[in-house]
Amino acid sequence: MMKKIHVAIIGASGYTGLELMKILISHPHFEITYIATTEGGVKATDLHPSLTKVFEQEVQKADAQEVAKHAELAFLALPHKAAMGFAKELLALHVKVVDLSADYRLGLEAYEKHYCEHEDKENLEHAIYGLPEINKSKIQKASLIANPGCYPTASILGILPFLPYLKKEAPIFIDAKSGVSGAGKKPTPTAHFVTINENIFAYNPLKHRHEPEIAEKLQLVSGHAFEVNFIPHLIPVSRGMLVSSYLQTKDIIDAKAILIDFYKASSFVRVRDVPVDIKSTAGTNFCDIFVTQKGTSIFVSSSIDNLLRGASSQAVVNANLMCGLDEAAGIPIIAYVP
Amino acid sequence: MMKKIHVAIIGASGYTGLELMKILISHPHFEITYIATTEGGVKATDLHPSLTKVFEQEVQKADAQEVAKHAELAFLALPHKAAMGFAKELLALHVKVVDLSADYRLGLEAYEKHYCEHEDKENLEHAIYGLPEINKSKIQKASLIANPGCYPTASILGILPFLPYLKKEAPIFIDAKSGVSGAGKKPTPTAHFVTINENIFAYNPLKHRHEPEIAEKLQLVSGHAFEVNFIPHLIPVSRGMLVSSYLQTKDIIDAKAILIDFYKASSFVRVRDVPVDIKSTAGTNFCDIFVTQKGTSIFVSSSIDNLLRGASSQAVVNANLMCGLDEAAGIPIIAYVP
Amino acid sequence: MMKKIHVAIIGASGYTGLELMKILISHPHFEITYIATTEGGVKATDLHPSLTKVFEQEVQKADAQEVAKHAELAFLALPHKAAMGFAKELLALHVKVVDLSADYRLGLEAYEKHYCEHEDKENLEHAIYGLPEINKSKIQKASLIANPGCYPTASILGILPFLPYLKKEAPIFIDAKSGVSGAGKKPTPTAHFVTINENIFAYNPLKHRHEPEIAEKLQLVSGHAFEVNFIPHLIPVSRGMLVSSYLQTKDIIDAKAILIDFYKASSFVRVRDVPVDIKSTAGTNFCDIFVTQKGTSIFVSSSIDNLLRGASSQAVVNANLMCGLDEAAGIPIIAYVP
Amino acid sequence: MMKKIHVAIIGASGYTGLELMKILISHPHFEITYIATTEGGVKATDLHPSLTKVFEQEVQKADAQEVAKHAELAFLALPHKAAMGFAKELLALHVKVVDLSADYRLGLEAYEKHYCEHEDKENLEHAIYGLPEINKSKIQKASLIANPGCYPTASILGILPFLPYLKKEAPIFIDAKSGVSGAGKKPTPTAHFVTINENIFAYNPLKHRHEPEIAEKLQLVSGHAFEVNFIPHLIPVSRGMLVSSYLQTKDIIDAKAILIDFYKASSFVRVRDVPVDIKSTAGTNFCDIFVTQKGTSIFVSSSIDNLLRGASSQAVVNANLMCGLDEAAGIPIIAYVP
Repeated sequence: MMKKIHVAIIGASGYTGLELMKILISHPHFEITYIATTEGGVKATDLHPSLTKVFEQEVQKADAQEVAKHAELAFLALPHKAAMGFAKELLALHVKVVDLSADYRLGLEAYEKHYCEHEDKENLEHAIYGLPEINKSKIQKASLIANPGCYPTASILGILPFLPYLKKEAPIFIDAKSGVSGAGKKPTPTAHFVTINENIFAYNPLKHRHEPEIAEKLQLVSGHAFEVNFIPHLIPVSRGMLVSSYLQTKDIIDAKAILIDFYKASSFVRVRDVPVDIKSTAGTNFCDIFVTQKGTSIFVSSSIDNLLRGASSQAVVNANLMCGLDEAAGIPIIAYVP
Repeated sequence: MMKKIHVAIIGASGYTGLELMKILISHPHFEITYIATTEGGVKATDLHPSLTKVFEQEVQKADAQEVAKHAELAFLALPHKAAMGFAKELLALHVKVVDLSADYRLGLEAYEKHYCEHEDKENLEHAIYGLPEINKSKIQKASLIANPGCYPTASILGILPFLPYLKKEAPIFIDAKSGVSGAGKKPTPTAHFVTINENIFAYNPLKHRHEPEIAEKLQLVSGHAFEVNFIPHLIPVSRGMLVSSYLQTKDIIDAKAILIDFYKASSFVRVRDVPVDIKSTAGTNFCDIFVTQKGTSIFVSSSIDNLLRGASSQAVVNANLMCGLDEAAGIPIIAYVP
Repeated sequence: MMKKIHVAIIGASGYTGLELMKILISHPHFEITYIATTEGGVKATDLHPSLTKVFEQEVQKADAQEVAKHAELAFLALPHKAAMGFAKELLALHVKVVDLSADYRLGLEAYEKHYCEHEDKENLEHAIYGLPEINKSKIQKASLIANPGCYPTASILGILPFLPYLKKEAPIFIDAKSGVSGAGKKPTPTAHFVTINENIFAYNPLKHRHEPEIAEKLQLVSGHAFEVNFIPHLIPVSRGMLVSSYLQTKDIIDAKAILIDFYKASSFVRVRDVPVDIKSTAGTNFCDIFVTQKGTSIFVSSSIDNLLRGASSQAVVNANLMCGLDEAAGIPIIAYVP
Repeated sequence: MMKKIHVAIIGASGYTGLELMKILISHPHFEITYIATTEGGVKATDLHPSLTKVFEQEVQKADAQEVAKHAELAFLALPHKAAMGFAKELLALHVKVVDLSADYRLGLEAYEKHYCEHEDKENLEHAIYGLPEINKSKIQKASLIANPGCYPTASILGILPFLPYLKKEAPIFIDAKSGVSGAGKKPTPTAHFVTINENIFAYNPLKHRHEPEIAEKLQLVSGHAFEVNFIPHLIPVSRGMLVSSYLQTKDIIDAKAILIDFYKASSFVRVRDVPVDIKSTAGTNFCDIFVTQKGTSIFVSSSIDNLLRGASSQAVVNANLMCGLDEAAGIPIIAYVP
């Protein structure tokens, strides 16, 4: 039996930290040797009681030197800003990093416009955007992965196949719907059960920080700066994300044939004949996509689990690739249905 | 005290029939003198146990002659096709009709293309589309009202103020989200709790029969045939509807100012400063609207209660107008919050 | 038209404050002349945006002198402890008080054991427990009403008819299920959508402060100190409460006949033939009750809207009685179904 | 690598059939070689689209001879009555059977009283009730397992440790709450989203067929026929089950210490310090149990996933034991949290 690769999880208290543990506990080639939060001093089961009798490891106070002693690769499930400070240290200690925050996702200018001053400009230049469908070979050689945002993952995967056919001057409209776990564990008036239940509403319309992330990546792939209009909504579900993309093509295309062809070799994209739902991807790394059209107007519907394909399972796919493993090793594919 | 106007409800077993009763029970000027279903022979509380000790009237087997004896105006909460047969009889007997089905909403050609052969072509010509914001004075003189669909109500009210400013060749995209009560009371695999709960999906994308209704009414108002792309979704809530409309204007406009001005005299439209939610309109006849923009790209978000503004309370507003009453008489305005 | 009675609402920011406004806005005999919170300086629509175009009154900084100038009766929707301070002042100024907090519900000893030191012992002696089914005539003469807790309302109404038949030494078990609005508007980890959604759990089992309230009132009525074991649960709904009471009788009784007879004259209790649900009472002041039995073991299921019969509408019934009005005046009876 | 044991699933279209597939797809020692429904002629992905790219096997028309050719052990996820016909054939062909229906759970008399005439009396005598906590060694030698009902599993596991201490003449009250998946996939008025959402109600109170199953098994273990009063409720969640048991002991016991001691060697029971919730067991075979008391009154709260510990994962534990494997082999332990 192959010796397992030691990995660390920094930021174990949130939902994505939990999902990382849930995947890595039974991963065939990775072994969790270090988990940490900002404070430490607890057990994994104090943070996540559902892990009782499953994974009861001590949680450390995050320390880069300690990570380097125990692990070859670290997953950072930290807030933006905190992540880049820690990543910088780890990289200097030759620990590979998969960063789940936004800190290395954007070019410097866009990052500083939408987030804050960047404190690790040097590594930013070498970070690879960890969407395997566009960057697989670069990921395999990378030491720092910027794990994509949940909305960008679902949006880009839906739009990607159609980029060559789009009318350049037409705006792209993206109407996205996310479960509440995407907003994190912190109790806020917005996350209150009574606010969300029996309700739906848009938030940060045309101002969400995932909008420039989507726009930048589409431009990198297509060479054209499309106008991207992104409107996210909160829906009364815990997990899952559905993204509707409204596109306009130059000419009439066979959208479905293009979609099927584009993803014919993909392990984790499923092209569906009927409109996709979020329960069929919840619990998995799949992105399900459906497309239909009326003339040159195209409707693409893509579904992911916001915490898995939109965060933690995609992070482990990236780690698999960085470590020379099969991208599918240990990746969840069985949905939480019913 | 003014003598009350006698009204009938035909189709009392479904959700919109129930909502009609709930409004009319305490209406200051209408009195329910006749309620019926196709079979009859039960009490209102057999159909809707929550009416116990509130409204325990006998439910008749629907008969137009009997309606004419008991009521001046009838609300038809019947399936399409059944409605036009009954409406025809009632109109011949000089009973005013508010039809909540689709039977008189579209022009003949569009109707027969999307539904079935029309069996009351004569009255169809005189039917008035009962959206008070565009047809108030016509409604006041009408004897037959085609009460608008739920999706068209929310969509048209959102788009209406911007019609003069739209780029004529640009498609309109409408991404709509509806609670499950919109699909009716019938048990189907789609309406099963386990299908809907923790889920969201599009259905009939670009093929829903409310698409031609929206397109036709926008054309009637604007004189231009816009390309309307309509995609409805089911969300895990019982009632409520949120409609996102994505528009493109010729020039940069001040969308919010236009919206405020357009509805400044409206009793039942509320322009909101923050993205609208569906709980604030659930239980009421209000349509809440929010708009924001990026250059010439416009996002309009409109919210209604699908069973009230999208059906029964709008029907009663129409009845109020047809009977020379204040449009707001007896109309619910207090939301089901929290 | 009768001159309206002026009333005040102190504590307008929470759910019960909102429900009081929703009822009183259209009450035939009461007029809201003063609303306040601890801070004041806002409008009702700032606290509750759904009131836009419905009720846009200024919210004052709570001041007893001002209340006395503007109102004959005040509803206190304040936290316990804050309530008794304010009630004391109001009563001295001859303002009638309906207190929705726990401050006047219990005898002194029980109160100080389960809450804190009592700061208005004098008025406590004269406070009337505002459950109309047991105290109607006393309420009519009272100037201070202790409005019952939500769990005690549903529990006591379910158990009351059977008290004379119970086996004295047998414990009573009450398994209660409440919507999350009962826990208030404050964002807490427990009220987070992700904690509640797709979940159910007991809280404070055998330690909830409504347990002594139930026990004390049952003892007052029956003359016997039953052992009451009360276990509340949170369920993933916004509003509504279902209470299961498990009783043991001395002899075999006809439980249903006793229940029907006991409530035959009651306006706001409905005895049902099938197990009660919470949607049929949500939005109303009704308490629906179902009973079944196996020998001397009795299962009673009672349903109320926790914010209405469990708080605000019961408070208005009490106010109606205190002011010599019909108890049903302006009280909501139409459920939020579907 | 050990040769895998071939197993069949009969009844692949429902929820428990799906859960069996989800577990067995990645089981280390079992291989699904045959799946069937009554009709056959489809693929697993036609029945369960979420299995696309995961498990796309052909579904056969159920035939006992074919099962015997392909498998050593068969899981029957069929309705009661259908199951016993099929089990009889399979046993005659020397195929081991784990029956998830009710057909072999009760003694003959009780079965025929609560279900229908029994058509396989011979095998009924040898069937083993598959609750590993009480029958582990018998299960290891069995060829026919009656897999317990979901309510009995949660109820019995909660009550079992306290049986020796119970007051014999005191009734046991069990207040159970189940997610809707327990009622199956069939669209019914009860399973309609609008019926369940924002609602809770009891059903079949004191008449549910799981009541005699619980009573019989408690009697078999304790030697005493306790009076069991069982009231199930439906709650607005898809999966999960919480069972409250109300017990009375002869003397004051240390309930928590007894509970901990009783399950100290159990792989799949977790004793919790705080009231259990259903999300922490959803997706797993765990039964979480909490106990608290007031004198001789005991409240036990037990939580399971109704489709897993209440059906399919317990079935696979039984199959593991029947085949000489570790009971935990391939059994899901990681919860669907958040």
